[in-house]
Amino acid sequence: MSEFTPTERTRVRRKPDRANYDRETIYGILDQAFVCHVGFIADGMPVVVPTNYVRVGDKLFLHGSTASRLMKTLGSGAPFCLSVTLLDGIVFSPTATGHSVNYRSVVLMGKAEPIRDPAAKLAAMRDFVEYVLRGRWAAVRPPSEQELNGTMVLAVPLVEASAKIRTGFAVDADKEYDGTAWTGVLPFRWTPGEPVRDPRGDQTAPVPENIQHYSRPQ
Amino acid sequence: MSEFTPTERTRVRRKPDRANYDRETIYGILDQAFVCHVGFIADGMPVVVPTNYVRVGDKLFLHGSTASRLMKTLGSGAPFCLSVTLLDGIVFSPTATGHSVNYRSVVLMGKAEPIRDPAAKLAAMRDFVEYVLRGRWAAVRPPSEQELNGTMVLAVPLVEASAKIRTGFAVDADKEYDGTAWTGVLPFRWTPGEPVRDPRGDQTAPVPENIQHYSRPQ
Repeated sequence: MSEFTPTERTRVRRKPDRANYDRETIYGILDQAFVCHVGFIADGMPVVVPTNYVRVGDKLFLHGSTASRLMKTLGSGAPFCLSVTLLDGIVFSPTATGHSVNYRSVVLMGKAEPIRDPAAKLAAMRDFVEYVLRGRWAAVRPPSEQELNGTMVLAVPLVEASAKIRTGFAVDADKEYDGTAWTGVLPFRWTPGEPVRDPRGDQTAPVPENIQHYSRPQ
Repeated sequence: MSEFTPTERTRVRRKPDRANYDRETIYGILDQAFVCHVGFIADGMPVVVPTNYVRVGDKLFLHGSTASRLMKTLGSGAPFCLSVTLLDGIVFSPTATGHSVNYRSVVLMGKAEPIRDPAAKLAAMRDFVEYVLRGRWAAVRPPSEQELNGTMVLAVPLVEASAKIRTGFAVDADKEYDGTAWTGVLPFRWTPGEPVRDPRGDQTAPVPENIQHYSRPQ
């Protein structure tokens, strides 16, 4: 199935022309973004927490300390909403209210299941490290049994998800363009800077090519 | 008061050494970020929606269409949680589980109040446009009465907020550093690209200096 079926909770209501339910598009946004915001209910109140994730096939993995409230809440099967947003640009319009942003966002609803099998958990940890940097797993010490025990890994089947995408220029009426204000789009992108070497690390280790020229899937 | 008083809901529990309740620090993060994620409860389920905001003094303003569910829910006084996250870097550690990210995040809890007074609403709209770009308000057509009527502006008093900040290198034990993996931090930053002119706009208008060299408060 190449499309998510919009549900009552994932159907884009506001500006439905920006809606996208295509699995490949949604996965592309998830793979490029790096931080998500997870919303859940704690003591009857909404809570939003930023965290990392990795998508593998039709699943998303979350991980964290077994002591974290986010992990404990989600691990207990509580419903949650997870959102990622890539800010692609600022849209300068000839009118005040015409200003906008170009973005790609994904919202997904889910229930998580803790991964208890040690081998599956280790595999997910590997996915996390490889999501940060392809090839990194082989270069570092793998998790100890104690580290694995202290980490909760949650699997989220990707069932209910939608994307919302805005591209292009302002959509004001032609008559608004009779002014002299500069109009257009200022694109934005998360850009890596110069790698900074850890003073405790091997000072002769060359900066790996994929760190020096880091990129995420576009 | 230069510090927020941590409450039951804003006290940082996980990694409290990363907690920061300083008003200036929190405002700095809010002013630099551009997109927030708002969590609220709809039909008993958690929902997270990305949106824009502007901070003015000890208040945050949100705005949107009067038809949007986010605006309607928050405008009715429903409790919400708002989070912004700036991803500052990826931390490469000698161990799999030591990998981390450097970030600055803010979480705030609030209740919003709709601004009904037209003059106050117009002033907030001006704040929004000026938050995007200083000096922009004077260059564009101000909102019409109809546009103002179709926009809901919510004021959120900044009362309950906390920041969480991670900086620096990996925190693994010294003995982990006997390997040959490159370790360090790859810094990240939202970076503006080359402005793209709107084909419908004045083609002779020079790109304003503060768009050509766009920066947000650091």
